[in-house]
Amino acid sequence: MNWLEAVKEIQPLNKDYKVIAQERLDQLTKPQGSLGRLEDLAIQLVSIYKTIDFSVDPITNFVFVGDHGITEEGVSAFPSEVTSQMVYNFLQGGAAISVLSRNNKVGLKVVDVGMKATIDNQNLIQKKIREGTRNFLKEKAMTKEEVTAAVQVGFELGVEEVKQRTKMLSIGEMGIGNTTPSTAIAAYLLNIPLEIMVGRGTGLNEDQLRHKKEVIQKAFDFHNLQTKDPIETLSTFGGFEIAAMTGVILAAGYKQVPVIIDGIIAGAAALIAYHINPVTTSYMIASHQSEEPAHQFILQALNLSPLLQLSMRLGEGTGAVLSVPLIRSSKHLVQEMATFAEANVSEKNS
Amino acid sequence: MNWLEAVKEIQPLNKDYKVIAQERLDQLTKPQGSLGRLEDLAIQLVSIYKTIDFSVDPITNFVFVGDHGITEEGVSAFPSEVTSQMVYNFLQGGAAISVLSRNNKVGLKVVDVGMKATIDNQNLIQKKIREGTRNFLKEKAMTKEEVTAAVQVGFELGVEEVKQRTKMLSIGEMGIGNTTPSTAIAAYLLNIPLEIMVGRGTGLNEDQLRHKKEVIQKAFDFHNLQTKDPIETLSTFGGFEIAAMTGVILAAGYKQVPVIIDGIIAGAAALIAYHINPVTTSYMIASHQSEEPAHQFILQALNLSPLLQLSMRLGEGTGAVLSVPLIRSSKHLVQEMATFAEANVSEKNS
Repeated sequence: MNWLEAVKEIQPLNKDYKVIAQERLDQLTKPQGSLGRLEDLAIQLVSIYKTIDFSVDPITNFVFVGDHGITEEGVSAFPSEVTSQMVYNFLQGGAAISVLSRNNKVGLKVVDVGMKATIDNQNLIQKKIREGTRNFLKEKAMTKEEVTAAVQVGFELGVEEVKQRTKMLSIGEMGIGNTTPSTAIAAYLLNIPLEIMVGRGTGLNEDQLRHKKEVIQKAFDFHNLQTKDPIETLSTFGGFEIAAMTGVILAAGYKQVPVIIDGIIAGAAALIAYHINPVTTSYMIASHQSEEPAHQFILQALNLSPLLQLSMRLGEGTGAVLSVPLIRSSKHLVQEMATFAEANVSEKNS
Repeated sequence: MNWLEAVKEIQPLNKDYKVIAQERLDQLTKPQGSLGRLEDLAIQLVSIYKTIDFSVDPITNFVFVGDHGITEEGVSAFPSEVTSQMVYNFLQGGAAISVLSRNNKVGLKVVDVGMKATIDNQNLIQKKIREGTRNFLKEKAMTKEEVTAAVQVGFELGVEEVKQRTKMLSIGEMGIGNTTPSTAIAAYLLNIPLEIMVGRGTGLNEDQLRHKKEVIQKAFDFHNLQTKDPIETLSTFGGFEIAAMTGVILAAGYKQVPVIIDGIIAGAAALIAYHINPVTTSYMIASHQSEEPAHQFILQALNLSPLLQLSMRLGEGTGAVLSVPLIRSSKHLVQEMATFAEANVSEKNS
């Protein structure tokens, strides 16, 4: 199935299940609404799975890897070769996402969709479309064909994963320099000034931060985009990992499973998915709010409320995986708590 | 050991371990500080346990149960008998805290320290001091002897638990009406106007909320307290579960293990513990920020930053147990991540 066809078939959530979930929650032995955000989440999960007796496991977190031509302009605190070095680290189990996936029982699949280097390792899923994006200060980062192909990579992997009985998808990424295209995408699509959108990424100083803003502003002037078309926007700024994450989100909507969104780069992919088909937001779970300033604007625009606010700015899907125990708890609560009637507990005074 | 003696022996954290933890974190394969709040937590844990190779498990969550004479004044949306009904629900596994403890592998111990009803069940720890507090609109809620005894209950249970190899303590409670004494304690000790401190508890309407404020104000006028002595304050407003939670906090400091603090009622106990010995805050982990307005002021006063903000207002230790996977993740990250040297990853550009 081609994602361009599949995306037309994504269904909005059936409101009947929202009512069913709310009624169930209000019968449970707790003051109404007292589980806060976990009740909203339970309603979303019941609506997506169309039953109260759903499973969220197994869960697969995809980490898509891509490099960025824009790193030539000195927009990152780390050198570009760190992308592939970190991929080795993922595969050897020493990265934050490796540690968190292992200990939280979340499957980890690492996908090279646009890395400069090539790593020959059977645990790395090889889907490279190009060795990094082009420098978007000088030309389009990706051709439209490359964008479409990268979205298809994520879409197919996501669909296949659900066919193999995965119940929840999750997205993260690795790509030195990728807060720059993500921020550019968000600032452009949301029409919010760069001054309040651009952040320090992995650790820029004051001068480097100013430079990063200037680079994005120059790119805006150079391309002078006249459309908010999501494919055109992705083509302009990149990157391959963002496009592939968009594909997983589309797969989640198409296959009707939730997808956990990590930080700002996954958030940029979510914004692109929303522009492709706004119904996709119904399937998104915002895991955390990153320290990158643009992220909160993305979440607001998508009307998503993050489960965690831990001042993190790491990527790799770390925020997504950290939110998994809360999602599981939401499931356990709606399924396992006793009702007032079952437990013989008096209800609220009228 | 009597808590009044033990409290003098509580040690501040050794700053050397803060340095050791920070150095370790800065060598791990991630941008410095990018794990945000989880790095602060790792530093606190290393400092408490005095090693990087610590365990946080097993964890025990104590739920202390007490009733409140002030419920005679109509300050709660639920009738007082719900306290014991919910204790049955805890013991049968149908309450939110039962579901969360079971699924998050946290030990649950329910302690009757001041419930009106008596429940004969071998899984309920019987430490009743009195059948509920007195109505603090008319008299002191507890005698000083009762306060001291209730603190001793929590202290002894906490100390014994650590002796039985528990590595982390956690506190929650059940007691219809107990946001009222908790808010009174916080408003009095922090000297913050009731107008912004009093909340809806389990679900008061506008008129009932106004009434709750009036009741506390009348009690302030009636008692006209002249001291911020924590025992005098607890004696004035109650309750038994708050005093017992204070005892567990003192036990955590004395036995040098962390203690997870739940919502506003556990927060009131934390505030009392701070007034007994301010060093105790070093051992506290603030799990979540409750919807009750007074809670944020308590956390600020104790200089604690909550791990979760899920708009919850349930109690029972539910927020505390929900934070456990984050605490475990902090441990796994600081212990299991590869260093830049181990993983051959390039460090930040200078």
